[in-house]
Amino acid sequence: MSKPTVGFVGLGAMGFGMATHLVKEGYPVHGFDVFPASVERFKTSGGIPGESLQDSASGKQYYVCMVASAPQVQTVLFGAGGIVSALPQNATLLLCSTVPASYAQSVAAELQSRGRGDIHFIDSPVSGGAKRAADGTLSIMAGAPSASLESGRFLLEAMSDANKLYLVPGGIGAGSNMKMVHQVLAGIQILGSSEVMGFAAQLGLDATKTAEAIKSSDAWSWMHENRLQRMLEEDWHPGASALTIILKDVGIITTSARENQFPTPLCSTAEQVYLSALLQGYGPVDDSSMVRQYFSEPIMKVACTKSAEETAESLQLVLDMMEVTNTVAAAEAIAFARYLGVDLKQFFTLVNDAAGSSRAFMTKGLEMIEGRIGQNTETVSDAIRRLGKAVQRARDLHCPLNLGNAAMNVLIMAKKAGLGAEGSTSVIKVYGK
Amino acid sequence: MSKPTVGFVGLGAMGFGMATHLVKEGYPVHGFDVFPASVERFKTSGGIPGESLQDSASGKQYYVCMVASAPQVQTVLFGAGGIVSALPQNATLLLCSTVPASYAQSVAAELQSRGRGDIHFIDSPVSGGAKRAADGTLSIMAGAPSASLESGRFLLEAMSDANKLYLVPGGIGAGSNMKMVHQVLAGIQILGSSEVMGFAAQLGLDATKTAEAIKSSDAWSWMHENRLQRMLEEDWHPGASALTIILKDVGIITTSARENQFPTPLCSTAEQVYLSALLQGYGPVDDSSMVRQYFSEPIMKVACTKSAEETAESLQLVLDMMEVTNTVAAAEAIAFARYLGVDLKQFFTLVNDAAGSSRAFMTKGLEMIEGRIGQNTETVSDAIRRLGKAVQRARDLHCPLNLGNAAMNVLIMAKKAGLGAEGSTSVIKVYGK
Repeated sequence: MSKPTVGFVGLGAMGFGMATHLVKEGYPVHGFDVFPASVERFKTSGGIPGESLQDSASGKQYYVCMVASAPQVQTVLFGAGGIVSALPQNATLLLCSTVPASYAQSVAAELQSRGRGDIHFIDSPVSGGAKRAADGTLSIMAGAPSASLESGRFLLEAMSDANKLYLVPGGIGAGSNMKMVHQVLAGIQILGSSEVMGFAAQLGLDATKTAEAIKSSDAWSWMHENRLQRMLEEDWHPGASALTIILKDVGIITTSARENQFPTPLCSTAEQVYLSALLQGYGPVDDSSMVRQYFSEPIMKVACTKSAEETAESLQLVLDMMEVTNTVAAAEAIAFARYLGVDLKQFFTLVNDAAGSSRAFMTKGLEMIEGRIGQNTETVSDAIRRLGKAVQRARDLHCPLNLGNAAMNVLIMAKKAGLGAEGSTSVIKVYGK
Repeated sequence: MSKPTVGFVGLGAMGFGMATHLVKEGYPVHGFDVFPASVERFKTSGGIPGESLQDSASGKQYYVCMVASAPQVQTVLFGAGGIVSALPQNATLLLCSTVPASYAQSVAAELQSRGRGDIHFIDSPVSGGAKRAADGTLSIMAGAPSASLESGRFLLEAMSDANKLYLVPGGIGAGSNMKMVHQVLAGIQILGSSEVMGFAAQLGLDATKTAEAIKSSDAWSWMHENRLQRMLEEDWHPGASALTIILKDVGIITTSARENQFPTPLCSTAEQVYLSALLQGYGPVDDSSMVRQYFSEPIMKVACTKSAEETAESLQLVLDMMEVTNTVAAAEAIAFARYLGVDLKQFFTLVNDAAGSSRAFMTKGLEMIEGRIGQNTETVSDAIRRLGKAVQRARDLHCPLNLGNAAMNVLIMAKKAGLGAEGSTSVIKVYGK
């Protein structure tokens, strides 16, 4: 049986990989992009060039939208000559762009109000980067009514890893919320990776050895491991993940948090540092360049002249800083997920297999999710002491430590709320019930 | 009757003015500084050059120490050839440097342990800048046992404005704590002045008109008015108040806050921005240069092309942002002062006549101090809405808004704590009982 024809818009870094993978899988794919060069390149890779946006949608029973942002989605779906007016009856439409859940819900409402409630609309943001997009091994978080999910499932499966297709309960918006709460961790830990390496450099520690120690410790995060090589090599132009990409995702988080009047002190802190860096011209370059916000020279230049004892003591500060900060990050993400009604067990599974993963999330995050809040042996007061030493040393060195200080203030607020003697996982209580 | 001889160490910007003012008042002043040029200049101004530190103290019944930091104080007082060993029996020693209260207390303890409990030691930090130092119209916050205060009072009076000598109850450390909690406001509002003007520039507002509107509104602060001209003219080299000065004071605050496990999210946020700017090379220049952290061009270059209606709407965002942020700043300073046992009525009087003053402090701060917490008509939720609009607009413009976002998170935590329907002054409850 021949495979059905698929329409596709948005042939950027991610979309190009996704669309060409579908081509490789044997789907006839009609691709469109506002940049003619991208369409031409798609043609070279075996795709069928759409002559116009409408052409890419006309008569297509299946359609994938992978443009960059909600305003772009609005234009391609509902603007003049847009996709929705061209799709046939009962078509299936996958929205894979990262957008606010409220925006995904507004698309469903607009389809109804325009009399196109027949369209099987799926809210299905993706994660994993350009390489996994091209390999068809993305993580996909898909939410929709079950009939729609049933209709689009083969396409979702074609683009995702077998173990990384998450059918998220809760309908339209649930997929976007799942992606968003994952990005709380990503947004904090991308900056955290730079903060910890900059702090280590200010302490006079060898960058490679410090990174090795972090990797094999409770301070590990996926982002640290992933950004490390580019940070060490200052491989930022263009790099693999521009600052503007995480900044867009973080903006969705903080905007949604404001709408929900939910506190996100760490994610907000990260956002402000990203915005400062944007003002300094770092927007288009790799986000591992954030290390420059903490240390003004390449960190590989640091030659450690400390004694073994001093090195061990400084390294401990670095590990403590990152681990405790990642614990507060886990609390922030889990509390927000819980508030939004996200399935926490699915969230846990997804994170551990994705870019937001950290050892602190795997252990302390799991305790928070399983209702063992405050039962771990290290108390809030212990964590304050441990992080406090690192924060004070950074201050003595005149090293910014944005996340470390933000985490410190959250922990102290937990203590002020009477949680000092409870296990440090009870820091999640600061974020409300 | 001839005036007594005074010894003096630390002839920097402030110390030189203080010492030469004493000379003008007819005191024989023996001045010393590690920079021979400063001693020479002091001689030209009528002072008596100390040949050594010990020489400046030997046989002097009265002594003023105005070096830059606690480590310097420790060296000049107790180091080899230091002041304490040279001072005569029952001498009076004024420590006017800004130091942590715990350090001032350690000086008193060390005097005792060295058998020099006879010295009348006074913890008496000053405020007001170089001009007021030279005019003898400083604010001085003096704490000590009453016999010591009695002994040194004439000197404190000679250097301060008649209405600005605060005899702070609580003994040694109380003066330093009073100065420190004042600097919470100064540290936040110095950055706030830049943040609000940078935000206005990002909104496309005329800098001068915006500043005029702020001055005559509830968003007014002394720091904004004081820093404005230098900000407009980019008069930063060397300017009037180097970034390193406020950074030192903020470091005393955040270090003390950590020791006391007290949350200072706004002051910590300001500190991190200062540290980032330090890394960018702004240390020696005027702190009004912080506007560059929010807008990359001179703000005077902004030519407003908005309609009257748009201008009014944008201006309202600017005023709301600053006023609500200053309200949270007032809560942070007052809560910390209360926690440290500072006399709040005296604190209020002092602030209103000093550099930490703001309209928000004068009104909402007074309500907090007088126990009318939560009784004002604007609720926490109202304040969140008002500040939220400004924060969102800044985000849409990609404008950093460090303090605005930090204040927003504090307010949202207040709401999470069940205070949403109470007056906005109840935000102080987030800082503990």
